[in-house]
Amino acid sequence: MHNDAPTAGGLAQRFNAVRRYSESLVDPLEPDDFNVQPIAEVSPVKWHLAHTSWFFETFILKPAIPGYQVFDEAFEYLFNSYYNSVGEQFPREQRATLSRPSLNQVWDFRRHVDEAVSQVLESNLSDEMRERLVLGLHHEQQHQELILTDLKYVLGKNPLRPTYISPAEGTDESSVDLNFIANEGGLVTVGTQDENEQFCFDNETPSHKVWLEPFELSQRLVTNEEFLDFVMDDGYQNPLLWLSDGWTEKEQQGWTAPEYWTQRDGQWFEYTLHGESILTSDDPVVHVSFYEADAYARWANCRLPSEHEWEHFCLKNSLHSSQSAKSLASPVMHPRPSCNSGEPDQFMGDCWQWTASSYAPYPGYESTPGAIGEYNGKFMANQLVLRGSSCATPEGHARATYRNFFYPKDRWQFSGIRLARDLA
Amino acid sequence: MHNDAPTAGGLAQRFNAVRRYSESLVDPLEPDDFNVQPIAEVSPVKWHLAHTSWFFETFILKPAIPGYQVFDEAFEYLFNSYYNSVGEQFPREQRATLSRPSLNQVWDFRRHVDEAVSQVLESNLSDEMRERLVLGLHHEQQHQELILTDLKYVLGKNPLRPTYISPAEGTDESSVDLNFIANEGGLVTVGTQDENEQFCFDNETPSHKVWLEPFELSQRLVTNEEFLDFVMDDGYQNPLLWLSDGWTEKEQQGWTAPEYWTQRDGQWFEYTLHGESILTSDDPVVHVSFYEADAYARWANCRLPSEHEWEHFCLKNSLHSSQSAKSLASPVMHPRPSCNSGEPDQFMGDCWQWTASSYAPYPGYESTPGAIGEYNGKFMANQLVLRGSSCATPEGHARATYRNFFYPKDRWQFSGIRLARDLA
Amino acid sequence: MHNDAPTAGGLAQRFNAVRRYSESLVDPLEPDDFNVQPIAEVSPVKWHLAHTSWFFETFILKPAIPGYQVFDEAFEYLFNSYYNSVGEQFPREQRATLSRPSLNQVWDFRRHVDEAVSQVLESNLSDEMRERLVLGLHHEQQHQELILTDLKYVLGKNPLRPTYISPAEGTDESSVDLNFIANEGGLVTVGTQDENEQFCFDNETPSHKVWLEPFELSQRLVTNEEFLDFVMDDGYQNPLLWLSDGWTEKEQQGWTAPEYWTQRDGQWFEYTLHGESILTSDDPVVHVSFYEADAYARWANCRLPSEHEWEHFCLKNSLHSSQSAKSLASPVMHPRPSCNSGEPDQFMGDCWQWTASSYAPYPGYESTPGAIGEYNGKFMANQLVLRGSSCATPEGHARATYRNFFYPKDRWQFSGIRLARDLA
Amino acid sequence: MHNDAPTAGGLAQRFNAVRRYSESLVDPLEPDDFNVQPIAEVSPVKWHLAHTSWFFETFILKPAIPGYQVFDEAFEYLFNSYYNSVGEQFPREQRATLSRPSLNQVWDFRRHVDEAVSQVLESNLSDEMRERLVLGLHHEQQHQELILTDLKYVLGKNPLRPTYISPAEGTDESSVDLNFIANEGGLVTVGTQDENEQFCFDNETPSHKVWLEPFELSQRLVTNEEFLDFVMDDGYQNPLLWLSDGWTEKEQQGWTAPEYWTQRDGQWFEYTLHGESILTSDDPVVHVSFYEADAYARWANCRLPSEHEWEHFCLKNSLHSSQSAKSLASPVMHPRPSCNSGEPDQFMGDCWQWTASSYAPYPGYESTPGAIGEYNGKFMANQLVLRGSSCATPEGHARATYRNFFYPKDRWQFSGIRLARDLA
Repeated sequence: MHNDAPTAGGLAQRFNAVRRYSESLVDPLEPDDFNVQPIAEVSPVKWHLAHTSWFFETFILKPAIPGYQVFDEAFEYLFNSYYNSVGEQFPREQRATLSRPSLNQVWDFRRHVDEAVSQVLESNLSDEMRERLVLGLHHEQQHQELILTDLKYVLGKNPLRPTYISPAEGTDESSVDLNFIANEGGLVTVGTQDENEQFCFDNETPSHKVWLEPFELSQRLVTNEEFLDFVMDDGYQNPLLWLSDGWTEKEQQGWTAPEYWTQRDGQWFEYTLHGESILTSDDPVVHVSFYEADAYARWANCRLPSEHEWEHFCLKNSLHSSQSAKSLASPVMHPRPSCNSGEPDQFMGDCWQWTASSYAPYPGYESTPGAIGEYNGKFMANQLVLRGSSCATPEGHARATYRNFFYPKDRWQFSGIRLARDLA
Repeated sequence: MHNDAPTAGGLAQRFNAVRRYSESLVDPLEPDDFNVQPIAEVSPVKWHLAHTSWFFETFILKPAIPGYQVFDEAFEYLFNSYYNSVGEQFPREQRATLSRPSLNQVWDFRRHVDEAVSQVLESNLSDEMRERLVLGLHHEQQHQELILTDLKYVLGKNPLRPTYISPAEGTDESSVDLNFIANEGGLVTVGTQDENEQFCFDNETPSHKVWLEPFELSQRLVTNEEFLDFVMDDGYQNPLLWLSDGWTEKEQQGWTAPEYWTQRDGQWFEYTLHGESILTSDDPVVHVSFYEADAYARWANCRLPSEHEWEHFCLKNSLHSSQSAKSLASPVMHPRPSCNSGEPDQFMGDCWQWTASSYAPYPGYESTPGAIGEYNGKFMANQLVLRGSSCATPEGHARATYRNFFYPKDRWQFSGIRLARDLA
Repeated sequence: MHNDAPTAGGLAQRFNAVRRYSESLVDPLEPDDFNVQPIAEVSPVKWHLAHTSWFFETFILKPAIPGYQVFDEAFEYLFNSYYNSVGEQFPREQRATLSRPSLNQVWDFRRHVDEAVSQVLESNLSDEMRERLVLGLHHEQQHQELILTDLKYVLGKNPLRPTYISPAEGTDESSVDLNFIANEGGLVTVGTQDENEQFCFDNETPSHKVWLEPFELSQRLVTNEEFLDFVMDDGYQNPLLWLSDGWTEKEQQGWTAPEYWTQRDGQWFEYTLHGESILTSDDPVVHVSFYEADAYARWANCRLPSEHEWEHFCLKNSLHSSQSAKSLASPVMHPRPSCNSGEPDQFMGDCWQWTASSYAPYPGYESTPGAIGEYNGKFMANQLVLRGSSCATPEGHARATYRNFFYPKDRWQFSGIRLARDLA
Repeated sequence: MHNDAPTAGGLAQRFNAVRRYSESLVDPLEPDDFNVQPIAEVSPVKWHLAHTSWFFETFILKPAIPGYQVFDEAFEYLFNSYYNSVGEQFPREQRATLSRPSLNQVWDFRRHVDEAVSQVLESNLSDEMRERLVLGLHHEQQHQELILTDLKYVLGKNPLRPTYISPAEGTDESSVDLNFIANEGGLVTVGTQDENEQFCFDNETPSHKVWLEPFELSQRLVTNEEFLDFVMDDGYQNPLLWLSDGWTEKEQQGWTAPEYWTQRDGQWFEYTLHGESILTSDDPVVHVSFYEADAYARWANCRLPSEHEWEHFCLKNSLHSSQSAKSLASPVMHPRPSCNSGEPDQFMGDCWQWTASSYAPYPGYESTPGAIGEYNGKFMANQLVLRGSSCATPEGHARATYRNFFYPKDRWQFSGIRLARDLA
């Protein structure tokens, strides 16, 4: 949570761009789509739109503007996600029971916050507040991705399988053989420094040394076709391939394939935000849990990379960010096949990649003081780090040191598999 | 489920009136209010609007019109409530996850059904189909009451406590002392005959004899003030007043007062569809479970009436139906204080009254053949009969022989308490 | 809970006989069998032995003996089943976690209570206390049956299927065709009076009039072979045969046959307290829930009798009690085939018979004052009445007016099916 | 799972010693104590006695003895803990429902296995089988500790708070101030090599390099008194001290102090295997979850050590194993106060110490092939490493490289807190 402290004018422009992008994401929706929560993890879109505005109101407008009048006092309770320092929170799993405030009121709330932030940006905003504003923009970008993953769950679990948006013209590239690229490891540096000019979250700091044994990473992600081989080889029925907790979870949930895969009359289908279609062989497999990724890797005589291996590999190979622009003008709402032959590919912009690393504080980590400190640190238990970024990640949001984190059972994110192996 | 077989013209008029009334009930809503399900029992309004139309399509249009084209094939699955003979049902507790079909599509569905029914009514509809149409209208009336009770739960549990509709001018009548009116009992006849000219559900048949010991019923319903005495006398803390299952339920749910009562700073408030206001002493207590009604009666050295006592008492006293007209033009969305002194009062039109009778088939009961037979009979276990009708019951829907039924733990219906005593 | 007030000497003899019979029931057990609770309903045998002694200590010794010293103060909490007036209770579902007091200490407790009761019986015990003592004996007899049903569950669910006791010589009688015997009904009297000389529980009082339409009852119970026909006719797969709650329960529990039935290699087996053996065609089907009994009756174009029909039929046909002596000397621990042709049979001593009647207070019912009043009345919700008695009921315990009660889902009791039909 | 391959004679002697020690542990018990399972994690003592014997029968006797006749075929299913390669397992949480096989039969089973192992040890046992036998002994030692921790839960949760065994004479030493001892870190080696002469589990291999920043560890464990300060400072009420999942768990479980602590009339008591007594200030706090250990460390402006820091510190300071002999002749069944002033203390033999490290495979880890490979590797998710050993660990079982692992919520093990800090 450190940033590049842009000028006020640049900040206003960025603020406007990020806020508008959130709105563009919900353009294709029916009014009915805004307030649905099929599982606790999936928050209603209306809630996302309100919560991201609440963040700016709570952490910038209230401290920065003397005598600031909040839009609605009840919103502090209704749209606080998990900041205990701020106060109690409306129960997460009941968010969709809130028919009020209405969507119209939430739009009013957003406009109210937009105007107040614009005004405050014209005044003399302190460095700390400007840093927080940048944090708020990265926060809203995270929710932009969540809006898409949550919508995918809402629409993809609906028996009618509605389409979110029509796809752009497709490509006809096909995936190359799975090659591995070596890295010699050694005593390397990972993470980022505070004094950095680029924004990062506090969980990416401090930079520190780790020792890596020689390893190699697969040049591209595991494809649907390759994962289907695992399914067909009874991968879901062989307990020796699975972690014990993974096997239990699989049995309880009745998993037999990745989320959004369906088999009808011997044919496999996949739901994407473009609707349901026949499973595409060369696309990366996506929406697998850590348990499935780990079992697949074991079946393939490989393993998942550590987060340090992944990061170091990227830095060594200058893979810093996604190439493909994200916009609703040319929508591609699913990961795409690997497009070249032999170069490291699909590190950013296709799907998040499970690592074998538990989400834990870096040595010397200190969370930001105050309520903002609840942003990252308190989640450092029971979750695993995912690296990269996905087709749903907003342009410019991710970077090689970025640490995403989810529970090993989670499948509703755009999560896929990159393989690793030891080098003798 | 027998009816008065009106003429086609009369039937068309009634059909139109009932369908329009459903629509008028949702007029005051925000779009956000249509698809919320805070607990499994509370169905979304959108679902009610679709399901009642599905009923006409499934049980009349499809059998009566050769080659009838359904509006959408998926609706058979999505809007079937519990008719196993018709096919599988979308899981009840997940109804609010269906953002599609959109509300607009459901309105289209209603119009489609309305037109098809209007057309078929002009043709030569068989007696059986006309009977079913009348059943469908009574079915829709039941859902009109559910729309109101479910909305009350959605709005009343929202921390913002929004108002559904503003009340009509209030009355300033106050309740009289609780008097009892005697009945000598004996071998009496209850229930209705098949051959009746008036519509009834199959569960009200056949008429049959029962023996009643002499008894007396309270002339009016128990008031908020009287129930508050029970609360203040630690009625919720004294296990000797409670049925064993009731005590367990109360403990698990944390009940300390009727649903929609809240205490703040020593003052009691009640939420009604007109918003939250200070608890009114003379209004009947409402939204209590059977367990609470039973515990209150024991505390008051009384008991709950049997359904046969209740029905026989009504017939003896010519209390056949509600006096007050129901319409959204002069809305009174909560039970009202007793308005006279000594006459039997509040039997119909204020709130449903828990009886001590389990919902069971009358001697000689036979359910309607076919899928329609699933309407009533299969629920004759674990539920209790409520008699009367409520402020949310559509005009003309209920009658003295009507048997409503809910689980003893249910509180979201307009359910209140009438007391009974043995006569020595 | 009224009794025949025997002389002190007779009472001492009866007390001794009942207490010894409890002990004889656990003679065949391994030490390991005394403290097992596979489901909450099944209490450990050790607990039964202690609780029945606690009953005498709490309700007789403490009030009747000035300065009585309890055996162990902790037992008031540990062995109180559900008497809130007495105090808090150790959680029911955790009874088997109590490795202490040890079984040896419980035996000491029983001896202590036996001696104290014997002494107090020699003194001038008040009528009320003598009535309570008789109640305590009937209470212990109820637990004698529970010891057997609970043991059957413990042993019958053990993969090793151990035998409780070897059977006596079997009979080779076979069941006759299912005939029905008519009863004209009318205004009849059921229940018992207070002033009766015979003991009864308070829930059997007062006697009162009910009106019965003409009906007929099956002369014997439904057999295993007949129930197997229902199974083979997909009775468990046809929702139209089931009550809605019953269908839900069946699906959740995965029922496909009565408790203790197992199919291996196309052959059906049944576990009884004599071990596992091939299903006997002519034995009455036993260990079915109310839901299964009700579904079977519907499939057979019959219905279950009301408790009043059952009782009145017995009185009319002078079927007052079981003929067969119960003792461990000639053990028959399962219901036996009908032994005659045409006479009413198997009303008492084979298995409890589900009725269609909810367990509810008789008109004018008043529970016994004080803690003893918690014995019966507070359970009058959600349960159904079973009539008769079973092969596990102690000799002399049951009678025609006896009202046993269990939840509709319960299967671990010796519960079977008698059919009824309307007479036109 | 590599070992020191002792001679056959030495192995026989060790086998005998370990098996006898298991038996000595259950000497003080009542028969009732052998088959209790108050929570799923706590297995019955009878099950432990059988399962450890099943291990020898399954992994040594069956493969090593041609035509070996198993003691009872059903035991393969009943006493298999989690080896899917061997076959299905009786459900873990139902182990105490198995009244049969009786304890006597389990003793027979143990004798049968003991004799067969003794015989096979006299023959020419292969190296692989001898290695497995050593593994089986370490496995049985793990269950010896579990017998004690599980018994503590059974007895300590019993309202009677029975004593397992009387303590040896106590010491009157008191704890010194909490000092920290520095370590310079750097690129160090942790873990063990395959070719080692000493036994280790496969999860301790291979040895590998890690980079450690300079750090310091507390010289002794956190005491009851120090932890009580945290309790009194509302440590359990301050969400900012807790990990998010820890806070949720604490709320759901209602934790307000370590397991086995009770407050009565303002006085704190602690249950140990010697019975309940007033909380001892200087004893190490024990039976805290990872969440509580982590919250305490944050409150104390410290952190938990990583498993690598802990191990490297021990090796640097030559802390290889517990000093205190374990035997039932001089029982001390709880951790003891620190006994010196300034030297590193209480690393082994008092209580297991939560680390901040997730239980994960070491770089290059490969699990043992075959069913034995299910021993450790498949549990490498969602658990945390604990280091050291406890007062319940058998003499000679643990070592500095030993990796114990439990879920962050687990409290029934002897788990305590050692603090760490960064060195600037």
